[in-house]
Amino acid sequence: MPIEYGLAAGFRDYLPADMIPRQKMLDTIRSVFERFGFVPLDTPGLEQESVLTGGDPNFKMHIFRAGLKNSNESLALRFDLTVPLARVVATYRNEITRPFKRYQVGKVWRGEKPQAGRFREFTQFDADIVGTKSMQADAEIVALIAETMIALGFEKSLVRVNNRKILNGLAEYAGFPAERTAEVLRIIDKLDKIAWEGVAEELGRAPDGDMPGVGLADQEITAIKRFIEIRGGTQEEILQAVESLMAGAPTAQVGIAELREVLAHVRALGVPDEKWAIDLSVARGLGYYTGPVFEAILTDLPGIGSVFSGGRYDDLVARFNPNATVPAVGASVGVDRIFAAMEKLGIVRGQKTVTQVMVLNFDKNCATTGEAVVASLRRADIPSEIYLGGESTLKAQLTYAVKQDIPIVVIIGESEKSAGVVQVKDLRTKNQTTVPQPEVVQAVSRLLGRSS
Amino acid sequence: MPIEYGLAAGFRDYLPADMIPRQKMLDTIRSVFERFGFVPLDTPGLEQESVLTGGDPNFKMHIFRAGLKNSNESLALRFDLTVPLARVVATYRNEITRPFKRYQVGKVWRGEKPQAGRFREFTQFDADIVGTKSMQADAEIVALIAETMIALGFEKSLVRVNNRKILNGLAEYAGFPAERTAEVLRIIDKLDKIAWEGVAEELGRAPDGDMPGVGLADQEITAIKRFIEIRGGTQEEILQAVESLMAGAPTAQVGIAELREVLAHVRALGVPDEKWAIDLSVARGLGYYTGPVFEAILTDLPGIGSVFSGGRYDDLVARFNPNATVPAVGASVGVDRIFAAMEKLGIVRGQKTVTQVMVLNFDKNCATTGEAVVASLRRADIPSEIYLGGESTLKAQLTYAVKQDIPIVVIIGESEKSAGVVQVKDLRTKNQTTVPQPEVVQAVSRLLGRSS
Repeated sequence: MPIEYGLAAGFRDYLPADMIPRQKMLDTIRSVFERFGFVPLDTPGLEQESVLTGGDPNFKMHIFRAGLKNSNESLALRFDLTVPLARVVATYRNEITRPFKRYQVGKVWRGEKPQAGRFREFTQFDADIVGTKSMQADAEIVALIAETMIALGFEKSLVRVNNRKILNGLAEYAGFPAERTAEVLRIIDKLDKIAWEGVAEELGRAPDGDMPGVGLADQEITAIKRFIEIRGGTQEEILQAVESLMAGAPTAQVGIAELREVLAHVRALGVPDEKWAIDLSVARGLGYYTGPVFEAILTDLPGIGSVFSGGRYDDLVARFNPNATVPAVGASVGVDRIFAAMEKLGIVRGQKTVTQVMVLNFDKNCATTGEAVVASLRRADIPSEIYLGGESTLKAQLTYAVKQDIPIVVIIGESEKSAGVVQVKDLRTKNQTTVPQPEVVQAVSRLLGRSS
Repeated sequence: MPIEYGLAAGFRDYLPADMIPRQKMLDTIRSVFERFGFVPLDTPGLEQESVLTGGDPNFKMHIFRAGLKNSNESLALRFDLTVPLARVVATYRNEITRPFKRYQVGKVWRGEKPQAGRFREFTQFDADIVGTKSMQADAEIVALIAETMIALGFEKSLVRVNNRKILNGLAEYAGFPAERTAEVLRIIDKLDKIAWEGVAEELGRAPDGDMPGVGLADQEITAIKRFIEIRGGTQEEILQAVESLMAGAPTAQVGIAELREVLAHVRALGVPDEKWAIDLSVARGLGYYTGPVFEAILTDLPGIGSVFSGGRYDDLVARFNPNATVPAVGASVGVDRIFAAMEKLGIVRGQKTVTQVMVLNFDKNCATTGEAVVASLRRADIPSEIYLGGESTLKAQLTYAVKQDIPIVVIIGESEKSAGVVQVKDLRTKNQTTVPQPEVVQAVSRLLGRSS
């Protein structure tokens, strides 16, 4: 009896056609991160459950528990790379020099209900700077995001920057109770979807009943409207406008001063102004952000949402050690989402093979000659294969190579073997030339535009 | 109350000092695999439990189950990358062209009892050729193993090659019942540890009682001894000797003929004879091997065991689909073990940073100038940082850079800034020169031996 062998629901495979460009994308991200001096870290997929939940009995995220049969360990699969980073910083506080600029790439798991387009395993690629309060670090993260987007080939990316302290000052400024801030922000977050009229309605609606509502007074709503309307203009103009508007909100003023610093350093780091914008509507969901927050969007793909986001979180490490408060700022690439965007924009396309040369293999007596040719090509670092499939004729093997988008084939039959030559055929131009066997590397390198 | 925040037992972190060289090692392996025309695949960490166990109620490996609270899904963490490959081949049999030469790198989990030096999560790096019975494929895997070991910098690696069919012919040849083969092989496998005397004793001991024993007759043991004594000599001599010795064992003869083919193709692929050996004592534990088996060892580190091993397994895919019998051959790098070996042999050493240039940051008024310098270096693809730590003096920041093994620092104080120059200091030679700010990339490139 064959066994059931499907993928588990909510999971997916990446076949080579996708994995080849996906891996190039990951290499590009890594090279940008290393250019900024970030160093790699790796932590296990499994952590103690209490590490992940922070011991919070109301922890709401659906995490996968993991364990052996009949074991009483409480283990679970990580749901992000930030909590493990906080654990590492707390654990190795004497070994790790600060600031600790680390990157990490890896899979994370969340127990979403399996449904179309929602996956329960995905890859994150994070960069964080741990151990400094300096806004120079926040500016580094903004520059890192902008440079990564450019390196990946996105022409219309925009890093939107805000500060949680400004948002936290909203209550002070508009006059509503501070404990309503989260609800107010959640509604403001819908601006793109339900427009100002919808937002105003929800802000004003009384908070009982099934519909969202916080019951703000008219003048509070008007104040929020004026805040939200600060848009466009230069970075300086936006900061100037919000500074005047929120003059009576000290918390917000601290946030504005921070963004002013970020602005100076982002400019100095050479990020063009059109690649980033101060945007007061950016909130970012995660509760742990305490200062600047960032998110990259693609202005030519608005529907896809943010693809690379983060912020400052100065309190996370204290969860593990109250005596080890460590300021931190960082951001995380949504690898799967960014790859989907690259596909949609035609920046990447499926690629069937990494092989540049296939040596055909239609005459048993020439097999070892073909292998010698393959070996010489590989020695010259040219990805090469000898045909190992089921087709036995030259013609069918050629067809296979064409179908696989392999640019060059080498043909060796009895007559070539006895003459000490090979046929080199460029499948892109259909040109075929006879080459002495010892010169095959040179001939192939020329066709591939490499120096041999 | 701070929460417990240790690593889960049996798991480990890789801090940057280890991860930097580890990642280089993974890059090297990948580049060799791609040079051979292998393409990447990725599959989820979680699979349906039945996929992993093959529906076998006696499945013995300790696997981690995973699931959400109150869910009745049966999910588990993969314990290798071969079973997921078999699932992929069965699932996408119409999309995947054969032979399918794929590689995959990823974490796998096994529920070992946590104890010193035994980990429950480790990284595997596999290469397999699926869909051909040709011994050319087996030779490719032998060549791949040998080339990988050379590329990683091991000077004394040896790929040992055997064939399960020869071992399966042992019963026929020596005259013991075929169903005893597994036990006999398990005892022969101890040859390195308990020498021939120990092996002979266990082979001869009656099979009841607590001690290992299969109760073979003296002449059967003598036959096995003659088999095991076939060692040393050229590959041809070994094959010749075993062919004569096992003349009456047809299964073994098939295996010998296969190895003769492997021999011809491995030679053609340019693998030097001293890098591999036919070794009749190699059994490899996994039940699913059906033909040639391989393992790489380090002759200067015998204690570490095999670091890269595999074999032919022609029946694995049939587990999922009896109508889809697909021959396959492959091998798996023990990434953690091979990295440990590289450390022991001094091939790699800890590396604190990837940063080549640190711009000191001791004068607030020069911070943005420093950032501009950093940005220009990064644009030239030179990994660079501006100092963001807590030290405020030039001297302390210099000390930090020295401690981090950063080769070059750039110093910008008020006087440099107003003169439009920077100081470039090579910390390896202690040379310091004054350079016009626009020429800093050129100066640094020269010191690093790069073309700018």
